[in-house]
Amino acid sequence: MSEHIYKKIELVGSSKISIEDAVQNAIAKASETVRNLRWFEVMETRGYIEDGGVAYWQVTVKVGFTLEE
Amino acid sequence: MSEHIYKKIELVGSSKISIEDAVQNAIAKASETVRNLRWFEVMETRGYIEDGGVAYWQVTVKVGFTLEE
Amino acid sequence: MSEHIYKKIELVGSSKISIEDAVQNAIAKASETVRNLRWFEVMETRGYIEDGGVAYWQVTVKVGFTLEE
Amino acid sequence: MSEHIYKKIELVGSSKISIEDAVQNAIAKASETVRNLRWFEVMETRGYIEDGGVAYWQVTVKVGFTLEE
Amino acid sequence: MSEHIYKKIELVGSSKISIEDAVQNAIAKASETVRNLRWFEVMETRGYIEDGGVAYWQVTVKVGFTLEE
Amino acid sequence: MSEHIYKKIELVGSSKISIEDAVQNAIAKASETVRNLRWFEVMETRGYIEDGGVAYWQVTVKVGFTLEE
Amino acid sequence: MSEHIYKKIELVGSSKISIEDAVQNAIAKASETVRNLRWFEVMETRGYIEDGGVAYWQVTVKVGFTLEE
Amino acid sequence: MSEHIYKKIELVGSSKISIEDAVQNAIAKASETVRNLRWFEVMETRGYIEDGGVAYWQVTVKVGFTLEE
Amino acid sequence: MSEHIYKKIELVGSSKISIEDAVQNAIAKASETVRNLRWFEVMETRGYIEDGGVAYWQVTVKVGFTLEE
Amino acid sequence: MSEHIYKKIELVGSSKISIEDAVQNAIAKASETVRNLRWFEVMETRGYIEDGGVAYWQVTVKVGFTLEE
Amino acid sequence: MSEHIYKKIELVGSSKISIEDAVQNAIAKASETVRNLRWFEVMETRGYIEDGGVAYWQVTVKVGFTLEE
Amino acid sequence: MSEHIYKKIELVGSSKISIEDAVQNAIAKASETVRNLRWFEVMETRGYIEDGGVAYWQVTVKVGFTLEE
Repeated sequence: MSEHIYKKIELVGSSKISIEDAVQNAIAKASETVRNLRWFEVMETRGYIEDGGVAYWQVTVKVGFTLEE
Repeated sequence: MSEHIYKKIELVGSSKISIEDAVQNAIAKASETVRNLRWFEVMETRGYIEDGGVAYWQVTVKVGFTLEE
Repeated sequence: MSEHIYKKIELVGSSKISIEDAVQNAIAKASETVRNLRWFEVMETRGYIEDGGVAYWQVTVKVGFTLEE
Repeated sequence: MSEHIYKKIELVGSSKISIEDAVQNAIAKASETVRNLRWFEVMETRGYIEDGGVAYWQVTVKVGFTLEE
Repeated sequence: MSEHIYKKIELVGSSKISIEDAVQNAIAKASETVRNLRWFEVMETRGYIEDGGVAYWQVTVKVGFTLEE
Repeated sequence: MSEHIYKKIELVGSSKISIEDAVQNAIAKASETVRNLRWFEVMETRGYIEDGGVAYWQVTVKVGFTLEE
Repeated sequence: MSEHIYKKIELVGSSKISIEDAVQNAIAKASETVRNLRWFEVMETRGYIEDGGVAYWQVTVKVGFTLEE
Repeated sequence: MSEHIYKKIELVGSSKISIEDAVQNAIAKASETVRNLRWFEVMETRGYIEDGGVAYWQVTVKVGFTLEE
Repeated sequence: MSEHIYKKIELVGSSKISIEDAVQNAIAKASETVRNLRWFEVMETRGYIEDGGVAYWQVTVKVGFTLEE
Repeated sequence: MSEHIYKKIELVGSSKISIEDAVQNAIAKASETVRNLRWFEVMETRGYIEDGGVAYWQVTVKVGFTLEE
Repeated sequence: MSEHIYKKIELVGSSKISIEDAVQNAIAKASETVRNLRWFEVMETRGYIEDGGVAYWQVTVKVGFTLEE
Repeated sequence: MSEHIYKKIELVGSSKISIEDAVQNAIAKASETVRNLRWFEVMETRGYIEDGGVAYWQVTVKVGFTLEE
């Protein structure tokens, strides 16, 4: 049934490896406490620099989940 | 007194009927667990299509409520 | 002739009924004092909440009208 | 299977009745020539004014559909 | 270690005094219930008017905090 | 009663002192000729520089007021 | 003296010739009734098409002027 | 009759001469294959540089046309 | 010669692997039916979640191609 | 070879004549001190008004150039 | 004479005191090495939090200056 | 100490491999001439297409660095 209500929360995931891994880390963390995660939207991609290279990626995502009946 | 602090949460309401009904559904759901809902802002209006017509409306709203003293 | 000059004013209409009715109310009010209203653009849709439901819709519109020769 | 490719087209639907009806008209027209319409996103809501009231609503939507294999 | 995951919440702080004070009020309120607040971003500055002057400032901020391991 | 219609006008206030003072100056000026000012929204903050410092602040605000019945 | 207060109004100028001419037309019209016009900002450039070519340009500008002391 | 449905397509026109000419080139090209072109909206103005001057202008436009009954 | 006219279409590519792969899938699909693809612009990155991880990435791209003489 | 690195700088060009001439003036000035200018993007078009007409156009452009190996 | 060419640079100023002071610090720093600073535009206001209060304000400004003849 | 002043510059990095590699290339290039690079923000992701696939990725980043005391 499609008449669900969803909530969206905003998270910032970090990773030394890639943008995708930063998103995965944020979602993995959220799934520890929130059930029914459904989708995400990348809002912003940033990162920190050390020694002339990317030290880690920092990706802001909105994550949507179903509010349970 | 006007020096309240408010929190805004982001919800997605769905309805087969109308944009207004999708907003109402999101607010009704939020009011089950949050007190002191005050206002909402429509962020995005989308929907799904079946058989060449709108199957349901999906409206993203930010909902503001007073943080209690 | 198409080389008209138009002015746009920004109004906020309210309604207990619907988004469309809030727009209509803003335009009806503007038409009391401005002639030659031609078009409108919805800028923002918000509203106030009472008792867990929408108390009224509040829609910001820009309304364009012809400046008379 | 979720690895579909979708195309989005931009349409403007009109209606004398409501925002929802303008969206429906755009989708109904698109479904005459495009199969597999899946979702829409409302981009812009405008309209024309006659005699101090809304003459018709004009809603810009992006409509997404599956590109067939 | 930098691979933290952060959550961002959206608050509206009010003050009769200044924009900065409205932000401080929002952060002080949040720190009553959330630990590890790290940064904020000002999203919107508004306010209410009484007797031809600013009655109070109302500032929307996003506040980021570390999700604990 | 909440079914008011509001108009929003756009002003730029200036001040040598602060952002808040520039907003206050714009509102004070508007209140000389417009009754029923209700709220403002800060749209843009700029300023001019002289001798390596801020000479004055220039803040664009939208100011909303009730259209009288 | 720089602590002026300015008002900005939004106009749409039209021209068969060019974008610049459409802006000039809007400003010329405004100067018939408003004194102390100071600057403009181009917000949007559109136009109408006839016979496979531009029939006329339509440029939305915000025009700022000094509110007199 | 105003209850038409329109489609908008996005084109990039180029010209060595001017912004207006780049728009005209895009519209002239579109009119070779699409009937009932009605309006355009300038989305983006860019260009390429050679020998310290503008080599050509490149203007992105959305072009709207009536979908035939 | 640089006075080409380009058309831009909007596609959504999906991939279980990465953002880059989702873009590649959209472009590969487009190249089956459109010649002269030249460039793309990433508009939006989203995705779906299953079992606490990214199930697949969904990237919206605009793809530009030369309209043939 | 396409794996160049580019830098973008932001300039404001002025002209009494036209938008295009203001862009040309900004690029001509930049080319006095920067080599390898490649492209520009128009960010904002404004201007100043004197005696009821445009006194000069002021166009903000981002200009991109190759960082030399 | 108004046909100057300006350059805009983007700075982030910090202050423990206020938004205005963060802007002043950025401008004071710029004026050590750049002559003819003319105006600034506030792009973003953020800050860091310590012990439940604002530790310092961080304001991103674009600063414009005349390129010398 | 946190009351640093930062400057942000805008670069476009290219890579045949990935978005992350394009960002790394831009930062590596900047670090040849600028000390104290601290963070970056991805502004835009684009790319060029050859033979129905991505020929190279082109990522616009803003890079922030501390202005030395």
